[in-house]
Amino acid sequence: MKDVAARAQVGLKTVSRVVNGEPGVTADTVQRVQEAIAALGFRRNDSARLLRKGRTASIGLVLEDLADPFYGPMSRAVEETARAHGTLLIHGSSAALPERERELVLALCARRVDGLIVVPAGDDHRYLEPEMAAGLATVFVDRPPGRIDADAVLTANFAGARAGVAHLIAHGHRRIAFVGDRPGIHTAAERLRGYHAAMAEAGLAVDASWVALGPTGPDRVGPAVRALLEGPDPVTALFTANNRITVTAVRVLAGRGLPVALVGFDDFELADVVSPAVTVVAQDAAELGRAAARLLFGRLEGTARAPERLELPTRLIVRGSGETPPS
Amino acid sequence: MKDVAARAQVGLKTVSRVVNGEPGVTADTVQRVQEAIAALGFRRNDSARLLRKGRTASIGLVLEDLADPFYGPMSRAVEETARAHGTLLIHGSSAALPERERELVLALCARRVDGLIVVPAGDDHRYLEPEMAAGLATVFVDRPPGRIDADAVLTANFAGARAGVAHLIAHGHRRIAFVGDRPGIHTAAERLRGYHAAMAEAGLAVDASWVALGPTGPDRVGPAVRALLEGPDPVTALFTANNRITVTAVRVLAGRGLPVALVGFDDFELADVVSPAVTVVAQDAAELGRAAARLLFGRLEGTARAPERLELPTRLIVRGSGETPPS
Repeated sequence: MKDVAARAQVGLKTVSRVVNGEPGVTADTVQRVQEAIAALGFRRNDSARLLRKGRTASIGLVLEDLADPFYGPMSRAVEETARAHGTLLIHGSSAALPERERELVLALCARRVDGLIVVPAGDDHRYLEPEMAAGLATVFVDRPPGRIDADAVLTANFAGARAGVAHLIAHGHRRIAFVGDRPGIHTAAERLRGYHAAMAEAGLAVDASWVALGPTGPDRVGPAVRALLEGPDPVTALFTANNRITVTAVRVLAGRGLPVALVGFDDFELADVVSPAVTVVAQDAAELGRAAARLLFGRLEGTARAPERLELPTRLIVRGSGETPPS
Repeated sequence: MKDVAARAQVGLKTVSRVVNGEPGVTADTVQRVQEAIAALGFRRNDSARLLRKGRTASIGLVLEDLADPFYGPMSRAVEETARAHGTLLIHGSSAALPERERELVLALCARRVDGLIVVPAGDDHRYLEPEMAAGLATVFVDRPPGRIDADAVLTANFAGARAGVAHLIAHGHRRIAFVGDRPGIHTAAERLRGYHAAMAEAGLAVDASWVALGPTGPDRVGPAVRALLEGPDPVTALFTANNRITVTAVRVLAGRGLPVALVGFDDFELADVVSPAVTVVAQDAAELGRAAARLLFGRLEGTARAPERLELPTRLIVRGSGETPPS
């Protein structure tokens, strides 16, 4: 580690931060330290150390959907932490199918990964119990495990959605729609609960027609948003409950004259550039990945402890679309 | 297959198309067929068949950067084709580091994948020769292999960039900048060659200061774009050579009054919604993945043939930013 610090021209503490995936190091410095690690073969020693423990120095990451940009920063953060630990990351995606998740998880186990980070598609993870009993470190991220107790890193979905809807109410809106994912999905249900809580706290009754739940593709979301804005008594504001839904709502609103307020859950690329710029309840996707990887490597390094559940706060980013008054 | 067709309420030909990853089937139908396949356990039979041949019914995909949305549709297309063949896809990413690519490829080989699809980071793939000689099916995608002969699926980078730059010239521009990735990268070099060809064909000399090459992050691209637009003799149009660069250019241009023409290589989400909407030279990222997977499964099914190189055409999508006249 001294050689890495000297080569990267940073202090020992900085090397330790990078290796342990801790925050507070700039991207440039992370890269410099990683290049020094690669150049000096520090990784190889680390992997030899792991092999002595009967490990393979590899971990698996099971994602839900490769084409959802939300998972990009999360995966990259897991990968950076894994690399800093001299560990290979292999990933796969479940395409949101519980059967596929299970098949992929078991295939990665059969290939002897030391640990797994799982974005669950299913809601019953008892199939993992034998693997975990045999020593597989497992951390769930984005959504909690089902019917087993295990580490999980989640976003404060309920509190974040409640704050986003309260923001619209504070700007004068009373007729606010919620456009969300299928309610069987934990994050979707929590965000819907946040919407209902904010409405109830403001003493506003929710008309059932204002809540539109289902798949997040444009084929479903486009017509749903148009239906909410048309008819005799349209809503004046939309709360869109994830980035896939928000992007379609932005596209629908861009084609219309009348201003409609919009707050989306999740930040997304170009949210600051479209007009009006989109107010969002941002989650920290990279930090979800880093925190999950920290928990995983903590377990791999032998910490015996009860399963933990971390909940990361969201951040309301005010940009314009959420501050449009009712028309 | 007859049972799958009956359950999915489609013809046998459609099932065959989905299983072979061929185009011409709607996303809905693909999903229905895949659900029928999953429900009927068709996959398991297929995987048993592969196992009889001494295979593991798994393939690997080595990507370059998990956080680049270009790779989302490509990965998903590979995954869908793999799934339709009853094959598990595991992936990993090289973070654009040749050493990491090699390490990941060899780790996947050690885990006995039947085949590999590689977006290369390095330019020397001789390390794969022993694996390929031992029967590993290998297809390169997006960039060609270095120093070995193997299947490759590429985009027509040269022709696409030439057409994009010619489009700006046709709209009256003479002072056109090229903002691109590091020229050591095959795709970047080909697109730069297309720029020079279009300028030369129009009899336009290129001022060296108009060509800005380097990393594609906002830290480098933002100042580079601003420098091209300021100073005594600014350019009137930009050709941005990939989606990461274009997004930063759009952000810089949005903060300025004067109209500057822009054509970007690669389509990107919300390109049609920002103002002005962005004219792009689009590649078909999903088809790159599908074509690569088709070649791979062709090899796995025993086709003995010389390595092939496919080049997919680009498509100019006119949206407004590329038709702005010189100011």
